[in-house]
Amino acid sequence: MNSIATRMMLEKGVEIVGAVARSEAKVGRDLGEVAGLGRELGVVVSDDAAEVFRRTSPDVAVVAINSYLEDAIDQLRICAAEGVNVVTLSEEMLYPWETSPELAEELDLAAKRSGATLTGTGYQDTYWVNMIGLLMGTAHRIDSVSGRASWNVDDFGPELARDQQVGATEAEFQEWLENAQRPPTFGRNVLDALVADTGLTPTSIKTTTRPDIASSATFSQALQTEVPAGHVIGMTDVDEICTAEGPRFVFEMSGRVYSEGDGDINEWAIAGEPDVVLSNGTVPTQLTTCTQLVNRIPDVINAPAGLVTVDKLPRLRYRARPLHEYLA
Amino acid sequence: MNSIATRMMLEKGVEIVGAVARSEAKVGRDLGEVAGLGRELGVVVSDDAAEVFRRTSPDVAVVAINSYLEDAIDQLRICAAEGVNVVTLSEEMLYPWETSPELAEELDLAAKRSGATLTGTGYQDTYWVNMIGLLMGTAHRIDSVSGRASWNVDDFGPELARDQQVGATEAEFQEWLENAQRPPTFGRNVLDALVADTGLTPTSIKTTTRPDIASSATFSQALQTEVPAGHVIGMTDVDEICTAEGPRFVFEMSGRVYSEGDGDINEWAIAGEPDVVLSNGTVPTQLTTCTQLVNRIPDVINAPAGLVTVDKLPRLRYRARPLHEYLA
Repeated sequence: MNSIATRMMLEKGVEIVGAVARSEAKVGRDLGEVAGLGRELGVVVSDDAAEVFRRTSPDVAVVAINSYLEDAIDQLRICAAEGVNVVTLSEEMLYPWETSPELAEELDLAAKRSGATLTGTGYQDTYWVNMIGLLMGTAHRIDSVSGRASWNVDDFGPELARDQQVGATEAEFQEWLENAQRPPTFGRNVLDALVADTGLTPTSIKTTTRPDIASSATFSQALQTEVPAGHVIGMTDVDEICTAEGPRFVFEMSGRVYSEGDGDINEWAIAGEPDVVLSNGTVPTQLTTCTQLVNRIPDVINAPAGLVTVDKLPRLRYRARPLHEYLA
Repeated sequence: MNSIATRMMLEKGVEIVGAVARSEAKVGRDLGEVAGLGRELGVVVSDDAAEVFRRTSPDVAVVAINSYLEDAIDQLRICAAEGVNVVTLSEEMLYPWETSPELAEELDLAAKRSGATLTGTGYQDTYWVNMIGLLMGTAHRIDSVSGRASWNVDDFGPELARDQQVGATEAEFQEWLENAQRPPTFGRNVLDALVADTGLTPTSIKTTTRPDIASSATFSQALQTEVPAGHVIGMTDVDEICTAEGPRFVFEMSGRVYSEGDGDINEWAIAGEPDVVLSNGTVPTQLTTCTQLVNRIPDVINAPAGLVTVDKLPRLRYRARPLHEYLA
């Protein structure tokens, strides 16, 4: 993700003044080399974010490290303390107010104190929040909002494949599920954002999970192993929020090893007056994660200080010109 | 449209203080009766907009009379002169800056002088402008933007059906087309809005038109007549804008008499990095025209004075609460 975003930023006229990584394999090397650009950028990867921030005074930090706020908090704390705006791919940062309220409030206060804006964006910005918020805006009455999405476990490396229980038997999956201490799903953050966008009052929140079972032997690229028929190739989390006013929000997210012909889907249906639907065919999730991370940069620099979620930002726009031309 | 919008406004807590019509069949009657609500509202339909505005000082006027700005201008002039905010279904008002620049500038100035906001909204607000603008925002590079939409001639009465040449032979159609002095298409206004949203520079604009031919005998409800196979059931306008920077914008809009199984479509594809698509299945065009007319009211009241097009308004939101609660 960082490699793709680096190329896209350069193509949009962004001057990259620093780069930070944790891995010894990256620190000390030129960013252009680390990002596979085939040329040097004159930017050496550092392992000291605070030092880089003080030396370069960047307009924004692009942070793509972790998914959960608990894991991302150390890096975000440094950005907030140093007054550096952030766009991050941390999925929980999409809308962390309900799932990590204390960390969200701490970051919000720190960012307001230093004048920084912190925003979680990525694929879900448009495809799961703002486009669905817009679709909801074309309804007179909403009874329910239902979304279905999928992602390919093989796109995200072996660690996530193991997290998704790829290769387990159904019995192993059920045993794991019963004892699993899983953090809230990212679907939960999506629904939290959508419910907040409507101003409705959540009354109950639940997540149920079912295994996705291989109907025939399926090779997992991420694990470099074949999953036998009848074994687990991933799972589907179903998040559901009911509201005091009536409307119900449901999001089914399936993360599994794809077979030939499978692709990421994004399908939403609103039942009410009138019924309306939306589909994005086969979505290029990885690329649109990076495009939104980059295209959001001017909005985040322009936004007021604090933890500002994407539902509060202006409607995302195509950036035909260098990004700095969109700064207020 | 006005009847549906009247009901929806009442259901969203709007206090309707006046009603204006031109037709003798409506003037002098109670709005509730005219709108088919089955109850009186205590609002008598007047034929004098200025008098109604002065007597009632409304927060907004909901104007659904004409499609072209040239036809709508008299009513909009009164609103602008009296300082009354407007949401209108006039299709050209969606983005009139290129097709009627003088009238648009006159209205903009008059509205700024009196403190009113004038906005053209309706179906195209979300489905043809803002949702597509959002989709474009998920692209790193756009080569082309292509939209396809359709509407049922039978939904809009006999006048429009005759305008769409329903019932003509193909030869009659071609003869009509060669001599037709047609106003710009509404697709043109849509593309103007999308190009403006990207900040690209239009270099050429063209509209081509082809007849839609009945493959079998097709009954037109609007004309109460059967169109023989081989005759015209409507037409497809193809608007195309090329830009100096490269991206090409195309919109095909087909208005024809539907057969069983036909429905309004809304399909968009962006070619570039990456390719992205959007479909809204079978769209309830009439209802979503009215829902957006009503749901936009708070945005328009909150907006700065002038002719403000929907691409400049905040992202449309669902209105769970009475509309007045969304006023700034």
